[in-house]
Amino acid sequence: MILINKPTELHEKIKEERQKGRSIGFVPTMGALHEGHLSLIQVARSNHDLVVVSIFVNPLQFGEGEDFETYPRDIDRDQELCRQEAVDILFAPSVSEMYPETASVEIKVVEGVDVLCGQSRPGHFDGVATVVLKLLHMVWPDAAYFGQKDAQQVAVIKQMVKTLSMPLSIVASPTVRESDGLAKSSRNVHLTKDERQIAPKLYQTLLEAKEHASGGANRKELISFIQKRLETLTLGRVDYVDVLSYPKLEQVEELSGTIILALAYHFSHARLIDNIIIEK
Amino acid sequence: MILINKPTELHEKIKEERQKGRSIGFVPTMGALHEGHLSLIQVARSNHDLVVVSIFVNPLQFGEGEDFETYPRDIDRDQELCRQEAVDILFAPSVSEMYPETASVEIKVVEGVDVLCGQSRPGHFDGVATVVLKLLHMVWPDAAYFGQKDAQQVAVIKQMVKTLSMPLSIVASPTVRESDGLAKSSRNVHLTKDERQIAPKLYQTLLEAKEHASGGANRKELISFIQKRLETLTLGRVDYVDVLSYPKLEQVEELSGTIILALAYHFSHARLIDNIIIEK
Repeated sequence: MILINKPTELHEKIKEERQKGRSIGFVPTMGALHEGHLSLIQVARSNHDLVVVSIFVNPLQFGEGEDFETYPRDIDRDQELCRQEAVDILFAPSVSEMYPETASVEIKVVEGVDVLCGQSRPGHFDGVATVVLKLLHMVWPDAAYFGQKDAQQVAVIKQMVKTLSMPLSIVASPTVRESDGLAKSSRNVHLTKDERQIAPKLYQTLLEAKEHASGGANRKELISFIQKRLETLTLGRVDYVDVLSYPKLEQVEELSGTIILALAYHFSHARLIDNIIIEK
Repeated sequence: MILINKPTELHEKIKEERQKGRSIGFVPTMGALHEGHLSLIQVARSNHDLVVVSIFVNPLQFGEGEDFETYPRDIDRDQELCRQEAVDILFAPSVSEMYPETASVEIKVVEGVDVLCGQSRPGHFDGVATVVLKLLHMVWPDAAYFGQKDAQQVAVIKQMVKTLSMPLSIVASPTVRESDGLAKSSRNVHLTKDERQIAPKLYQTLLEAKEHASGGANRKELISFIQKRLETLTLGRVDYVDVLSYPKLEQVEELSGTIILALAYHFSHARLIDNIIIEK
């Protein structure tokens, strides 16, 4: 595995590999890798000749008062994990290398962002779209891999790639969970002991809601069902709960087709998100 | 030469060529090809294994009341000219193929567009940036070729490619002119006989202003010099005249470095632009 920090150096290397006709799989991450990321790397590894992983905590997707400064970083451990997964190129640029000067164009996401994290984190997906577009340009892979835990991100990126006519595949992989059901997240390290004990209730609530949905509950009833259960938790507070069509993320009162049950929850130092997708 | 209308078909063909390790040169146009376009094609032809030309009159870059409907179109003649220039692929998609559904993201140009055509055609460069970004994604060339007559377009696209970390070259070629100095433009066919006689004065005025600049005139004096000369023309009216740093397009009172003298002029059915770039 080689570690590359400079975009120009990445470009040289990628160009070389492309000329050999090698297929490229790309896993963009913000580092602090966990089994969720590793599962993406493993899928990419099995599908491509060359696997590129990027680690970049993207300031553009953090709002004021969010956790950009405290977002977990551990490049040495990440590097070791990537090596173990037989990653070919680990790309870890600095902020000044990714954003060298004033931006001359801005990317604005205009569909599917008035709900969920798009609503509670204004501008977040503009930052996500910008960095993913830049990284895709730098690597120009055959396919890029994302975790389904960030379901809205997956939807936004799939739509962006389509709108901007990028001939590459966006592949989503299932959420990887702890044995008690808590979705793996880099932010879980910021949970207190007590919060960590309660946190699996988020997923359990989604599973119970799924059960409830199969009994014929409509959108409003499901949202209220989830919200009430979450309000019984003794720590933290609900950021949002919603039930929407997926991937369009539209409000459909009578549920049919592919539906996402999604929530965000604030603990003292970590805002966690989770979702499940059901077929109605 | 092959003519391709469908983006998916283009993608297949390009992928094939890429895998052979062939270098790709790309000339995006709105058709109605003239010697200006042909000179771009010739440079691309001499630099690359594969030359792709696109013809697409992009509705997104025309404002209300502008000449989208009447913009000259002659695909048969264009096709013949491309064949003569040994173009490999002529890509001519329909509007519905380029913009198949609601856009999920929007590209907004935020630098260098509060002047010249950016000011007199609001939204124009957002449309240009969007279509060029999409076409660059579709072709993913080693280099793309643009005419220096559209100097602001060249500046905007060069900056976009840099901001979005696209590892490809944007090459600008000198404006090609009629023997009397009129810049070649697809829109020249819309000039009346009388207007056609007057039109070379636009370039002559720029040349006289260049002379005036070498005598030490500052920005305001140069603008006023050009404006006064244009006001003596018996047909048409000035859209704008400006003198700016290039490619930054900033107002610099005391001229130094690379400077653009640019104008836009309305005749009855054609709005023409022209510019010269001088070193101070």
